[in-house]
Amino acid sequence: MTSFILALDFGGTKHAAALVASGERSWRAYQRVLSPPNASVDTDLTNMRSLAHNLLQREQLAAIGVSFGGPVDATTGTVRLSHHVKGWENIPLREILEAEFGVPVSVDNDANVAALGEHRFGAGQGYESLLYITVSTGVGGGWILNGRLWRGAEGMAGEIGHMVVDPSGPLCLCGKRGCVERLASGPYIAQQAREWLGSKPERGQVLRALSGENLDAITGQIVSHAAAQGDELAIDALTQAGWALGMAIGNVANLMNPQRFVLGGGVTASGDHFWETIRRVARETALPEVHFDIVPATLGDEAPLWGAVALAEDLLTQARRITITNRG
Amino acid sequence: MTSFILALDFGGTKHAAALVASGERSWRAYQRVLSPPNASVDTDLTNMRSLAHNLLQREQLAAIGVSFGGPVDATTGTVRLSHHVKGWENIPLREILEAEFGVPVSVDNDANVAALGEHRFGAGQGYESLLYITVSTGVGGGWILNGRLWRGAEGMAGEIGHMVVDPSGPLCLCGKRGCVERLASGPYIAQQAREWLGSKPERGQVLRALSGENLDAITGQIVSHAAAQGDELAIDALTQAGWALGMAIGNVANLMNPQRFVLGGGVTASGDHFWETIRRVARETALPEVHFDIVPATLGDEAPLWGAVALAEDLLTQARRITITNRG
Repeated sequence: MTSFILALDFGGTKHAAALVASGERSWRAYQRVLSPPNASVDTDLTNMRSLAHNLLQREQLAAIGVSFGGPVDATTGTVRLSHHVKGWENIPLREILEAEFGVPVSVDNDANVAALGEHRFGAGQGYESLLYITVSTGVGGGWILNGRLWRGAEGMAGEIGHMVVDPSGPLCLCGKRGCVERLASGPYIAQQAREWLGSKPERGQVLRALSGENLDAITGQIVSHAAAQGDELAIDALTQAGWALGMAIGNVANLMNPQRFVLGGGVTASGDHFWETIRRVARETALPEVHFDIVPATLGDEAPLWGAVALAEDLLTQARRITITNRG
Repeated sequence: MTSFILALDFGGTKHAAALVASGERSWRAYQRVLSPPNASVDTDLTNMRSLAHNLLQREQLAAIGVSFGGPVDATTGTVRLSHHVKGWENIPLREILEAEFGVPVSVDNDANVAALGEHRFGAGQGYESLLYITVSTGVGGGWILNGRLWRGAEGMAGEIGHMVVDPSGPLCLCGKRGCVERLASGPYIAQQAREWLGSKPERGQVLRALSGENLDAITGQIVSHAAAQGDELAIDALTQAGWALGMAIGNVANLMNPQRFVLGGGVTASGDHFWETIRRVARETALPEVHFDIVPATLGDEAPLWGAVALAEDLLTQARRITITNRG
């Protein structure tokens, strides 16, 4: 009898759930809902429950994998906090879901889960050591070492967003100067472009037009579009972001010597010039003896869901191994 | 019958060999020689052979562990190059020693081997994830993750010395600006002090006196002594070095979330102020949720030798495991 895996993604702007038959590589069913503006733990859980129950008919559910948008203690499946919704502190998400669905559940934070997804099913297939970096409203990362997630001593590994690459750079929300996130995340790219537009009235004509002459409307995405159309101010803002990512990647290459860097998130859809900057600066920063490549993620928004499938598959493999050992 | 392990350390200024009985934690015998000024691969090998044969009487040798001062392909035991002596390119050191002594040999670079030594026998005992950093004529590092050496895809992991911490800092020999090694290694600390002494005739009176008013005689060690006696210029030079190390450690803590950083090498004997700077800057650079400690190495010059013992013990454990599996 076919057994099924349920993948859940508690995201920042949306929740998604998908059902896959064990061993298959396309969804049997998929649903998502946007998060309401005043979401709470209760509405988050209720929404996710109804998504899950909509998907499940009479399938034999074997395990559930969960991607959560915030730090998680992956050993217990307890959420530390949500980056998006208040009240998630210390919620035992694994326990809640195991009680409700009666199957084993594995939970981890979205960057780790997306890293695992890209490793198992996406741009990291066949690479036993890689850093996945998501460049979006924030900058985060997840490590695969020896083919497995490296979570760090406290589950905090992968925080490349708060690596300082320019100690005399602009002040980040975290209190430091010149963090990768401060230079390369979408909202900060937009802020940088707005500041330059404000002080240099002759520059950024394409960007001004795309924003309808309303600086407040500028987003990272609009900056990317303007750069694609040749706007020099937008290109400068993205070059600064690419420089920060390249510097961080080169430093990480020297430190960890992974085979590959996989970059996902909306900001990475910023065109060839952006990617060339990242690759050039990373190459210049790494020692000549250190080799690696930098490639785009291939799973897009679905990386956390596919990673959740991988988490669940690992649970099932472990369970099988324990059964065999007990028999043997 | 007691079996013995031979530990060899091909260092920059000296070669050392030591003999230990399997399971014991003090040397049965130990010898070292200074490297001659015009050393070659032949003199290096001849010196080490005679050290080894001096130590060995009628003991039952079980395995040899080797620390080498330069990059090594640890899977084959082939030296890539020496940082100190020309001609070591592609020398199959493991093969040479296995042919000569008729026992299994394991070879790795000195930073990795010292990391393993501190993990198994020194300041890293009981810590399953740590970065060992040596701050000496250069700055290098070795990773322990999940209780084992993490060497990276090409054996190049741990190069924290060429992490850029200040992209507008001084130019390093490697061609980049503001590398940790450029700011924190002994020779560069001395160079910094000399530059300041040259341009500020009223400062550094203690340091001037300690150097016999000969700026060329200043070494990192003399700067440390002057700082210990309150010389403000020397303190400034060491504060800059401590800042660079602290910044790198904080960044690494965010990226990898290890439990502990173990710092060895001559420069780390630079007093409380130096250590306070490292710890303060590392703490400020790491996210508040990321915890770690920074402690001095405890094995000193013998870290590579004890790490070589650990390499050899691991060889013996593997061999035992394979024997048991074949029997089973």
